[in-house]
Amino acid sequence: MTRSAEHVVSEYNDKDEVGMKIVSRIDDVRSAVMQARGEGKKIGFIPTMGYLHDGHLSLVEISRGITQFQVMSIFVNRLQFNDSSDFTNYPKDLERDIAMAGKCGVDLLFTPDDREMYKNALTTVDVSRLTDNLCGAHRPGHFKGVFTVVSKLFNIVQPDLAVFGQKDIQQAASIEKMVFDLNFPVRIILAPIIREKDGLAMSSRNKHLDQQQRADALALSSGLKHAEQLILGGERDVKKITHEIESIIKKGNPDSIDYISVVSYEDLSYIDRIDGKSVIALAAFWGTTRLIDNMIIEVAGDSYKCIY
Amino acid sequence: MTRSAEHVVSEYNDKDEVGMKIVSRIDDVRSAVMQARGEGKKIGFIPTMGYLHDGHLSLVEISRGITQFQVMSIFVNRLQFNDSSDFTNYPKDLERDIAMAGKCGVDLLFTPDDREMYKNALTTVDVSRLTDNLCGAHRPGHFKGVFTVVSKLFNIVQPDLAVFGQKDIQQAASIEKMVFDLNFPVRIILAPIIREKDGLAMSSRNKHLDQQQRADALALSSGLKHAEQLILGGERDVKKITHEIESIIKKGNPDSIDYISVVSYEDLSYIDRIDGKSVIALAAFWGTTRLIDNMIIEVAGDSYKCIY
Repeated sequence: MTRSAEHVVSEYNDKDEVGMKIVSRIDDVRSAVMQARGEGKKIGFIPTMGYLHDGHLSLVEISRGITQFQVMSIFVNRLQFNDSSDFTNYPKDLERDIAMAGKCGVDLLFTPDDREMYKNALTTVDVSRLTDNLCGAHRPGHFKGVFTVVSKLFNIVQPDLAVFGQKDIQQAASIEKMVFDLNFPVRIILAPIIREKDGLAMSSRNKHLDQQQRADALALSSGLKHAEQLILGGERDVKKITHEIESIIKKGNPDSIDYISVVSYEDLSYIDRIDGKSVIALAAFWGTTRLIDNMIIEVAGDSYKCIY
Repeated sequence: MTRSAEHVVSEYNDKDEVGMKIVSRIDDVRSAVMQARGEGKKIGFIPTMGYLHDGHLSLVEISRGITQFQVMSIFVNRLQFNDSSDFTNYPKDLERDIAMAGKCGVDLLFTPDDREMYKNALTTVDVSRLTDNLCGAHRPGHFKGVFTVVSKLFNIVQPDLAVFGQKDIQQAASIEKMVFDLNFPVRIILAPIIREKDGLAMSSRNKHLDQQQRADALALSSGLKHAEQLILGGERDVKKITHEIESIIKKGNPDSIDYISVVSYEDLSYIDRIDGKSVIALAAFWGTTRLIDNMIIEVAGDSYKCIY
C-alpha cells in the first residue's frame, strides 16, 4: 500500500533529530527562507520532479559550495507533460527522496501538491526560438510548462542561485535566457554532466539498456570526444564535424539517431561554423531507450574549451 | 530643440539639493533599492510610461502611505504597442516628468532606454482569458507586452507593493492575476479613479473634447451611478442593468458605444447575474475621442459595495 504524501511528510517532521524541514505550503517556504536570510545565509535552489538520483545530489553539492541554505523542490509539473498518462505514470518515491535529500544537505524540501501550485492558473511564460530545435521539436508545450513552473518557483523561493544540469542542455540554456530576459535576480549555475567511468552520461534510463546496448551506447560520448579532437585540430566546419560524429554513433548500432545538432548557445539556432559559444547535442535510440548527450564548446580564435 | 534624455538626467543629477535620484541602468536600481532595504524601508513601485498627470501622482501618494521608498519607472514599452507609429508618437516630456516626480515624493526614478530593457529578448509572459474581452479584443498582443515588461520591472525593482490605477481595470485585474499565478512577492494596490468634480474620470484625452462633448461625456459616470442605484435596489440581472446604462449613455449622444460590459472580476468573463466581485466597464467615443470608465461591485447576499 502506498502511504499518502501527507503521511510520509508528517511522520518525517515528527522525528526529533531532523535537520531538514519539509513543507508543502508556499507561505511556509517563504517564512523559512526569510529566516535563513535573516541569519545572513545565501539561498541555493534545486528544482526537481523527485525520484532523485546521483545527478540531483551533485546539483545540491555544487549549490552547497556557494550558498549556506539549500532549498529543493519536488513537484511533478503536469504543465510540462504532453501526454497525461506520462504524467500519471511518472515514477514517485517520496520516502526514498526524503532520505536522499536529507543526507546530501538539503535544508528545506518543498513538496507542494497540484492545488497549491495551480489555482485556475491562466498565466504562462514562454521563450521563443530556443525551444524550436533539439528535443523541443517533438514536445509542443513542454518548455512553456517548464518556464512557467520555474518562474513560479523562483518567485516562491527567491533564491540567490539555482542549479540546473547541463545534461538537459536545452532546458538549461533556455532557462538562462528566460532569467536574462525577465531579469530574475537569480544566478543560474550549470552543473556538469555526471558520467559513468567509461564516459556514458548517467541517466535513470540507462538501466533499460541490455549489456550489448550499454556497450554500444558509449558511441554518444565517443562521438563528442572525437569532435573535441577535431576542434582541437582546428576544424570549425559543422557539416564535417557532424559527419564524423555520425560515423562514430553508427558504429554503436543505434536503432535510430534522433539528431546530431550543432547550435549556438545564445539561441540554440543551427550554425554552419563553430564560433563563440556553441553546443553539440546528440539524441539516439537503443531499442526503445532514448539517450541524450551534449558538449558545450567555447571557441575564441585558436583557443577553445569543451565542457562535457 | 529637444535635448537628449541623457542630458536632462545628468543635468538633474548634477544639482546638489536633489532628493530624488534618477538612474537608467538596471544595476543602479538594484543597488539603490538594496540600500533602502538595508535601512529597513519598504519599497513602493509605480510603473509609468511618463507624460505624468495627476492620476500618476495619486498612485505615488497611495504608495507613500504604506511604504517608505518610492520607485517610479518611466519607460515607453514598445512591446505593448500594436502600431509602431503610435509608439514613435507617444508623447514625452522628461523634464516636466522629473519635476513632477521629484515634487510628489519619488525617491528613485528609473528611466531605462530600449536597449537596457530588451537585448534580443525572446521571453514573454501572457495571461489568457482576461485579455479576450473589453479593450483586449481590439489590441492583439498589447497585454502580452504589458505583462512582459511588468514582470521585468518587478524583478528589477523587487518592490513590496506596486500601485496600478483602477481606471484601466483590465490591465489592473490581469496584472493581479499574473502576480497570483506566478507568485510574484509583490502586493498589488488598485488606486481609485480620480474624477473631475462633476464625476468625469480624469484622462489626458479629456482635453480633446469640445464644450458640448465634455458635458455629454458625463453620461459614462452617470451610467455607473445609475447602475449603483439599481444594484442598491436589489437588481442583479445584467441584461436589465446594461439596458438602462445604455439608455443613459445614449442621452449623451456619443458617436458610438464601444462596449458596456459586465464581467466577473476573477477572469473578466461575461456574466448574466451580478454576484461576488464583478466589474461594469464602459467605453464610448465622442468624436474621435475614446473614453473609458468602470465600477467594481462586490455583492454578498443583500449587501454590496461599489468602487468607482
